[in-house]
Amino acid sequence: MHNYFMEIALNEAKKGIGSVNPNPLVGAVLVKDNKIIAVGYHEFYGGPHAEVNVINKSKNPEDCTLYVTLEPCSHHGKTPPCTDLIIKSKIKKCIIATLDPNPLVSGRGVKQLQEAGIEVIIGVLEKEAKNLNKVFFKYIKEKIPYIFIKAGITLDGKIATQTFSSQWITNFLARNKVEKYRNFFSGILVGANTILQDNPSLRCKVNENRNPYRFILDKDLVVSDKYRIIANNEDQKTFIITSEKNIDSAKFQLLIEKFSVKFITFSENENLKDILKKIGSLNIDSILIEGGSGVISSFFKENLYDGGEIMVAPKILGDSLAIPFLNGFSPLNIDEGITLKNIKINLYDNNVGFEFYKEGECLPV
Amino acid sequence: MHNYFMEIALNEAKKGIGSVNPNPLVGAVLVKDNKIIAVGYHEFYGGPHAEVNVINKSKNPEDCTLYVTLEPCSHHGKTPPCTDLIIKSKIKKCIIATLDPNPLVSGRGVKQLQEAGIEVIIGVLEKEAKNLNKVFFKYIKEKIPYIFIKAGITLDGKIATQTFSSQWITNFLARNKVEKYRNFFSGILVGANTILQDNPSLRCKVNENRNPYRFILDKDLVVSDKYRIIANNEDQKTFIITSEKNIDSAKFQLLIEKFSVKFITFSENENLKDILKKIGSLNIDSILIEGGSGVISSFFKENLYDGGEIMVAPKILGDSLAIPFLNGFSPLNIDEGITLKNIKINLYDNNVGFEFYKEGECLPV
Repeated sequence: MHNYFMEIALNEAKKGIGSVNPNPLVGAVLVKDNKIIAVGYHEFYGGPHAEVNVINKSKNPEDCTLYVTLEPCSHHGKTPPCTDLIIKSKIKKCIIATLDPNPLVSGRGVKQLQEAGIEVIIGVLEKEAKNLNKVFFKYIKEKIPYIFIKAGITLDGKIATQTFSSQWITNFLARNKVEKYRNFFSGILVGANTILQDNPSLRCKVNENRNPYRFILDKDLVVSDKYRIIANNEDQKTFIITSEKNIDSAKFQLLIEKFSVKFITFSENENLKDILKKIGSLNIDSILIEGGSGVISSFFKENLYDGGEIMVAPKILGDSLAIPFLNGFSPLNIDEGITLKNIKINLYDNNVGFEFYKEGECLPV
Repeated sequence: MHNYFMEIALNEAKKGIGSVNPNPLVGAVLVKDNKIIAVGYHEFYGGPHAEVNVINKSKNPEDCTLYVTLEPCSHHGKTPPCTDLIIKSKIKKCIIATLDPNPLVSGRGVKQLQEAGIEVIIGVLEKEAKNLNKVFFKYIKEKIPYIFIKAGITLDGKIATQTFSSQWITNFLARNKVEKYRNFFSGILVGANTILQDNPSLRCKVNENRNPYRFILDKDLVVSDKYRIIANNEDQKTFIITSEKNIDSAKFQLLIEKFSVKFITFSENENLKDILKKIGSLNIDSILIEGGSGVISSFFKENLYDGGEIMVAPKILGDSLAIPFLNGFSPLNIDEGITLKNIKINLYDNNVGFEFYKEGECLPV
């Protein structure tokens, strides 16, 4: 019975996808006499927590059992502590899927509830709850964004012809899944060459009210207002990551003043992980890496990816000059190659997605 | 009801896989008062036809309905005409999935049955029957073998590292499917370099009594008795396809005399299709192309393939010097690449097979 109600709480939590980052996805269910009294979830960043929503929706939470997918908070953040409200509401029992991953507060909420005489059970559908919030768990611990790599490739592993023609390799169903990823992650990152070749808008088509932040890795500041990502920056979500050498250039100033572009700069001594720390400090908990070849290769080389999906279409270029989705390694033995782990195969008609994770299982995208 | 019994006949036919080439797979069912009296199939090359087997297995075929997946023969071949036996057995009705593809005899069997007063229905599960015998249909019309290409590749389209390490890219389930293909097709063809690098035996592990013919495309006669395919040629099924320039070489004579190797030679003016005609003239109705890169590329370039399966493993080499499964094309626009058609996706745990056909649907492998 605990699993049944927790499953419902997990599904409630998923309703917050695209709206709560960098907060966790949290769902809650209030149950009395094995009947659901109310359901609720954390709806948007900075808004009331799931526990608050579910208690407010119930007429009389007294003596109820509360199912919640993450340990209730016990501290003042953007909202008052949930533990206070739970105790005040005279809830009898609290079933928690998983503890707060932040070592500074983990277990404190549970302790407060127990001290108030509330029975607490921890660990119901814990694995599922951890997979649900993989992004949050990584970000809260490491303060760098969760990195998810997406590539749409031919059967021979290419993302474009030798002349950079790439539209379209994958089919509509596969590309539509990419839109869902754009809604799920806080930001998208591409290399400057992808902007120059494809001039993408990098908007999210499945949820037009929620565009991700757009990051261009552009060391030499080669992009310009000729491209949509700069020219159409009304929402001011475009960031350029460039060498600090460009700070004094006229283009740098122009892009800030006229196009509201924001910059993240790095020195010769800083590496990709340093850049990710800077992005993390901006409240960005997750990034979808959309290419091109050089950017994807860097994330693999630095071993800075957490997961990804490589979508394969039944097309072949058969050209050694075409652009590979990944390059720069030299394994001599077949076992020295990169072996992707925790694979889930996704079918998009005759296209196939290889979803992979360094740890754990699927994100709820 | 016709579909039901014909489905059973089609499944009977499949029991002949690996034993009947270059004859067709044929199954038959005898039915009386909607009950199955007997089932039968063409069991081995040169043996009795399905119609003969099913009639011989029934005690009293009189007034029965005969379901047969291919038009009964009306001519003397290795066995007497089936039409004679059907008529003699006083069968009342004959349901045929598809006509004989040989234009010289197609429809003749039907005509003989009708003239004897037997009711004939043609076209029940015709598409399925044609897919079942795609190999036979092509071979009987064009006299060149049906060509099926197999490759086991990494996610970035490679069949080996730059030092030719390739064992193993795909998993056991995928490799086991290859064994089934080796049982299904009459022959296997590989390039000389595959012999030199991998020293494969090219035997069929799922059916040890039935090894396919082994063809090595070796223009310059570089293979030798150092390799298993030559040294272990007890069944005398190894063929080397080489330039006629090598006929007078000592190695040519040695391989014939000491290792019972057979040769197919070609001149400067002959192309891959000419070679396939020579193979076809040896009663070889179908060939599984197992690589390497050069051989697979040639079959794609000459457009001489009928179908294939590309098996993809979630491994990445990320090395532009690694060996691609296909090379030699230069498409500039993404739409100028090769688009595989009639795709069936096969799952082998976390490996994925892209099965494809120029025409029609899946072979019954």
